[in-house]
Amino acid sequence: MAFYALIMAGGTGTRLWPASRRDRPKQTLELIGDRTMFEHTVDRITPVFPPDHVFVVAGREHVSDLADQAPELPAQNLIVEPLGRGTAPAIGLGAIHLQHKDPDAVMAVLTADHFIADVERFQRVLEAAAEAAREGHLVTLGIEPSSPSTGYGYIQQGAKMECGGDFDVFQVERFTEKPDQETALRMAESGEYTWNSGMFVWSVDRIMTEFQCQMPDFYVKLAEVQGTLGTDAYGSTLKRIWPTINKQSIDYGVMEGAGDVAVIPVDIGWSDVGSWGSLAELLAELGEEDEDGNVIVGDHIGIDTQRTMVFGSERLIATIGLEDMVIVDVGDAVLVCPVDREQDVRELVHLLERQESDEYL
Amino acid sequence: MAFYALIMAGGTGTRLWPASRRDRPKQTLELIGDRTMFEHTVDRITPVFPPDHVFVVAGREHVSDLADQAPELPAQNLIVEPLGRGTAPAIGLGAIHLQHKDPDAVMAVLTADHFIADVERFQRVLEAAAEAAREGHLVTLGIEPSSPSTGYGYIQQGAKMECGGDFDVFQVERFTEKPDQETALRMAESGEYTWNSGMFVWSVDRIMTEFQCQMPDFYVKLAEVQGTLGTDAYGSTLKRIWPTINKQSIDYGVMEGAGDVAVIPVDIGWSDVGSWGSLAELLAELGEEDEDGNVIVGDHIGIDTQRTMVFGSERLIATIGLEDMVIVDVGDAVLVCPVDREQDVRELVHLLERQESDEYL
Repeated sequence: MAFYALIMAGGTGTRLWPASRRDRPKQTLELIGDRTMFEHTVDRITPVFPPDHVFVVAGREHVSDLADQAPELPAQNLIVEPLGRGTAPAIGLGAIHLQHKDPDAVMAVLTADHFIADVERFQRVLEAAAEAAREGHLVTLGIEPSSPSTGYGYIQQGAKMECGGDFDVFQVERFTEKPDQETALRMAESGEYTWNSGMFVWSVDRIMTEFQCQMPDFYVKLAEVQGTLGTDAYGSTLKRIWPTINKQSIDYGVMEGAGDVAVIPVDIGWSDVGSWGSLAELLAELGEEDEDGNVIVGDHIGIDTQRTMVFGSERLIATIGLEDMVIVDVGDAVLVCPVDREQDVRELVHLLERQESDEYL
Repeated sequence: MAFYALIMAGGTGTRLWPASRRDRPKQTLELIGDRTMFEHTVDRITPVFPPDHVFVVAGREHVSDLADQAPELPAQNLIVEPLGRGTAPAIGLGAIHLQHKDPDAVMAVLTADHFIADVERFQRVLEAAAEAAREGHLVTLGIEPSSPSTGYGYIQQGAKMECGGDFDVFQVERFTEKPDQETALRMAESGEYTWNSGMFVWSVDRIMTEFQCQMPDFYVKLAEVQGTLGTDAYGSTLKRIWPTINKQSIDYGVMEGAGDVAVIPVDIGWSDVGSWGSLAELLAELGEEDEDGNVIVGDHIGIDTQRTMVFGSERLIATIGLEDMVIVDVGDAVLVCPVDREQDVRELVHLLERQESDEYL
C-alpha cells in the first residue's frame, strides 16, 4: 500500500491581508525566509514522497503559480477544483484521482499554508501514521497545545492503541469545536487534548467508504465524476457537478461521525500562521526577534518601538513610540493595527468586499 | 517708497518627514489642497505686490522647483544663497538686491512654508505694516495666540503707537524665547503677548542700518557682496564670502537688540504647519475632519479609528483600533507614530543622517 500526499492548497489566508490577495493567497507568499508557504510544504515532504506521489488540489486561478513553485511535481498531479466547496469535497476529489492511479493508496492530507519547524519529526510521524492507516484507521495528527488557544478545534484522546512505532497512538474520544477561553484552559492543561491540525492519514479505500456512508449525496456526485476520470468528459463533468455540491468540512462531514478514528499527538513546532500575530510569534521562535521584542521583516528604523511586528517590502517603515503593533506594507496597501486587533483584519477585508474595492482584494 | 516682498524659502521642514526631503523641502509640498506651500504664499500676496516686486531667497538645489511653481516671477528675482546661514544673512542678501533695484524700498519679509487662512485680512495688515515701516519703524507681525504653545517665541507689547490705520500697533517691550509650559500659559492669557511669526516689514534703509550697528562683521562682508551687484564678480564673490559668515537668526542678530520696534497683533488664521500634528489641526479647522475626528488625505479604510491623521499618496492605508496616531505614506517611506510623539520625527531624521541613509533624506 504505497503512500501519497494530497496537499490542500485552496485557502486564501484572509487575515494576512494586505499580503494575501485573491490572486496571491497565503500559500504562495514568502512569509518565512525566501521560500513560499507552499514551497516549504513541498520541501518538507520531499524525503518521504517521490514527486509523482505528491498531489495538490487548488483553484484554477492559483494552479499556475503553484506549478511554478514546485516544478518537480508532474503537471497531472495538480488537481484543479472549479470552485471551492470546503475540505470534504476537495479531499474527495483528490481521493478519486489517487484511487484511479493506485486503488491501494494510503494518503496523507496536508495543508499548504502551515509551518512546521521540526521537519525530521514530522516526516517520522507521517510514516507512523501511514502504518496505522494501513491497518484501516482514520488517523489524524493532533498538535500538543502550546497555549490554551480558542482558535482551533480540539481532539480528545481515548484509549491507547497498539500501533505507530515510536509514537503514541490513541483512539479519538471526540472532536470538539473551537472552545471558549475557560474550556480551552481546562483542555490544554488536561494533557488529554490536542489541536486539530487538519492533517489526516488514511487509505483511499477507507475514506471513500466514509463518504459513501456519511455523505451519500456527495458520494453519488463524486462517483459520477470518478466515472469520467481519464476520459475527455472529465473536465466538463467536474465543471457541471461541482457547483451543485454543498460546502462541507471534513471535520463535520466525516471525522466527527466516524468510528475507529486515531490521533497521534505530536510536538513538531507547528504553526497555522493564521494571522500577523501568529507569524510574529513564529518568527520570534525562529530567532528573528530583536532586543526590544520587535519582529522586523524589511527595512525599518524606530525610536521607542517595542513588541511590534513590521512586515515591509520595498519601503522604509519608520516608527516612533509604538508598542504591540502590527505594520504591514505590501504592494499597494499599508495596514496599521494593534496586535490584539489582528483578528479584525478579516473584517477589514469584508469591508473592502462590500465596498467592491476589488483592486485591493 | 514702493513696497516689495522677500519670501524666505530656505527651510526644510524636518518634522514633516517622510514628505519633506532634502530635495523636496516643505515649501514645495502639496500639504493643503493641490497647491504647494510656496504656491499658496505667492498666491496670497499677488494682489498686494506686482510680480516684479516679489523676491525669493532660496538654496541653489531648490530654485528650479520654486521657479516652476511661480512662473510669473522674473528669473532675476530668485536670489540664490550658496548655503544657508540662518535668517539674518538671508534677509541681508535680499536687502542688498532690493536696495540695488530701489534705494527707497520698503520690504516685507515673508515665510514660504506657513499657512494663512484669512488672506484678505493678511493683505490689509501688510499694507498697514508698510505704512508704519515708511515712518521708520521695524515692524513685526505678531500672531494672537490660539493656545499656550511652547513652540514659538513670544513678543510682549508696550505702549500703543499712532499709526497703522485699522490695526493697533504697539511698541515692542521685548522678544522672549520659546517659553516653558507655565510661562506660555501666563503669556497667552495676559493678552499682552503674541507669537513671533517671523514676518517683518521695514524699509531697506532701516534694516541695513541695523545690520551695520548690530552685526558689523556681517555688514562688512555683505557690503563687499553688494559692491559687486550687477557685475560679473557677483557670483564668485558671494560664493567666496558666504561660507565665512556666521550663522545667525534675525531675532537674535537684530530684533532683540533694536530700538523702535513695532508689533501689529493679528488674527489671520496663521499656522506654521511645522509638524504632522499641526497640519492635522489646520486641516481640521479647514473642515477636513470626519465624524471620528480623523483627518484623511488619500485613500483610507478604517475600523475603530479615531483622531488619527492619515497622509497617504498612492497606496491604500488601512487602520484598525487606532487613536491619536499619525500615519504618513509618501514615496519610499512610511511613518507611524502617536500624535504626541510627532516632535520626535526630527530625531528620526537625525538617526537617518547618522546612519547615512541618504536615500531617505
